[in-house]
Amino acid sequence: MRAVIANGAGGPEVLSLGELPDPEPGPGEVVVEVAATAINRADLLQRQGFYPPPPGAPDTLGLECSGTVAAVGEGVTGHEVGDEVCALLAGGGYAERVVVPAGQLMPVPAGVDLVTAAALPEVACTVWSNVFMIAGLRPDEVFLVHGGAGGIGTFAIQLAKASGARVFTTAGSAEKREKCVELGAEVAIDYHEEDFVEVVRQHTDGKGADVVLDNMGAKYLERNVSVLADKGRLVIIGMQGGIKAELNIAELLNKRGAVIATQLRGRSAEDKAAICASVVEHVWPLVADGTVRPIVHDVLPLERAADAHRMIEGSEQIGKVLLRA
Amino acid sequence: MRAVIANGAGGPEVLSLGELPDPEPGPGEVVVEVAATAINRADLLQRQGFYPPPPGAPDTLGLECSGTVAAVGEGVTGHEVGDEVCALLAGGGYAERVVVPAGQLMPVPAGVDLVTAAALPEVACTVWSNVFMIAGLRPDEVFLVHGGAGGIGTFAIQLAKASGARVFTTAGSAEKREKCVELGAEVAIDYHEEDFVEVVRQHTDGKGADVVLDNMGAKYLERNVSVLADKGRLVIIGMQGGIKAELNIAELLNKRGAVIATQLRGRSAEDKAAICASVVEHVWPLVADGTVRPIVHDVLPLERAADAHRMIEGSEQIGKVLLRA
Repeated sequence: MRAVIANGAGGPEVLSLGELPDPEPGPGEVVVEVAATAINRADLLQRQGFYPPPPGAPDTLGLECSGTVAAVGEGVTGHEVGDEVCALLAGGGYAERVVVPAGQLMPVPAGVDLVTAAALPEVACTVWSNVFMIAGLRPDEVFLVHGGAGGIGTFAIQLAKASGARVFTTAGSAEKREKCVELGAEVAIDYHEEDFVEVVRQHTDGKGADVVLDNMGAKYLERNVSVLADKGRLVIIGMQGGIKAELNIAELLNKRGAVIATQLRGRSAEDKAAICASVVEHVWPLVADGTVRPIVHDVLPLERAADAHRMIEGSEQIGKVLLRA
Repeated sequence: MRAVIANGAGGPEVLSLGELPDPEPGPGEVVVEVAATAINRADLLQRQGFYPPPPGAPDTLGLECSGTVAAVGEGVTGHEVGDEVCALLAGGGYAERVVVPAGQLMPVPAGVDLVTAAALPEVACTVWSNVFMIAGLRPDEVFLVHGGAGGIGTFAIQLAKASGARVFTTAGSAEKREKCVELGAEVAIDYHEEDFVEVVRQHTDGKGADVVLDNMGAKYLERNVSVLADKGRLVIIGMQGGIKAELNIAELLNKRGAVIATQLRGRSAEDKAAICASVVEHVWPLVADGTVRPIVHDVLPLERAADAHRMIEGSEQIGKVLLRA
């Protein structure tokens, strides 16, 4: 099968199309004929050699896909050859076929075409598990998500808004901020010009945010703790702004706050299956009725994986960038 | 009534016995005739001027008491004059009488005498709310509590052990470590000589602790994150080792861990009532059947409050130091 091969670690130029053996399904696994995959920031780190795949995962990039069930392993029930699915992967999505534990397959939500469905698994599982399952955002609460125009951001804004929460976000350009507001953000903060702590406080009578979803890590830690409301929960899912920073424990303690750092990829297959099942139950109905839409910036052919990476590295996109297999 | 008065902020010598007006119960409140109160580290900070009481709380020291209901305010049901109780207070315990929201009263567990019951409210509510309600310690998990010989420590060891968890603790002297093991700790670590991260890892096949209850704050932050197992929860309830320290977000993220900082005193009356109700339901039966015992180091008369503070400041005690009213 055709697959994107990395010729060593480095810039986007290390990625090129090559040939790999077709995968076979082991017990409890399914092989999906890939319709499309999507780019995640973790792919960029892995390409640079900073984020090796977890034990047992394919070396090939690609943490999600959509496609058609092509083969079913021993002991798998409820999936048949020909079913249209999307899936959360531990790796291997940048290819024509990928093997995946059956628990990480999800149906394609009604009204979403098969290629577009590749934009859903990572953002839906990340936002649902972190903001709702872990941080427990409630309808009367205030939610702040950084990077509102990205894949995670565009989905988080819509899902939090649909839940009844008040949504604040940060974004870098006027076009991105406009899109964030269109998707349901009450205020989209220009992080170049404004202090998000001040803006969120101004709009919430000084209270701050009950839940913060952060992809910046060290750079925002101090201000993220500052912006937390009493009993606020900061969930860090990315470290684009560095990995170590000073924590003001006294401030966190006075607020009875929590700092949670988490990632999907390293979780066990059981955890991932539980998250996927919860997403299908709670999130897919909102996608099916159009309340929450997958936001796709561009769809490129698999052979243009390097260009897709350049797009994400330049932070040009609004929503997800897909690769069609 | 007689009460301990603080003549300004400072050392133990600022505390002396004086006279204050008798408190009256407002709606939803009860006045308790105090049998005994207990010393908490927060009292020492408040005495030094570092930890002002929350709005609406009495200025007088004292976060818990035992005693007899002396007067019942409007709208209070389920409590009658003469009932023996213990209570979580926002302040005011170092006195002959104290006013308290009815939701913060708890019955005296069977088999515990009225004076000794003053040793229970803070430790039971702190340990139960943080280790079980917030951090969700499970019977198959590993628990580490720092300062195992203190009031919180002696109670946490017993309650965690009773829940089925494996218990590790740190303590400074051989006598204290012996007591910790007697109370149920698998290993009591000499923090002067040993690295608790190494010791806990050695005894858990490298896994570490699922829940850490910490009173040191900054000084232990790095090692507390290090000792966390995957999905581990660090709960910081004290800052005896400082208030700011570097957080390794990458390490926390790889473990999908949480750092929670919290305190009881600033919580709302509703929160406190919910915690007290949960303690009475889940913890009191274990106290009544002798599985978990209040550990009392000494009982002094109210006029010796300054000596009681000196005892805690010297970290001499094993368990709680009480003041008899």
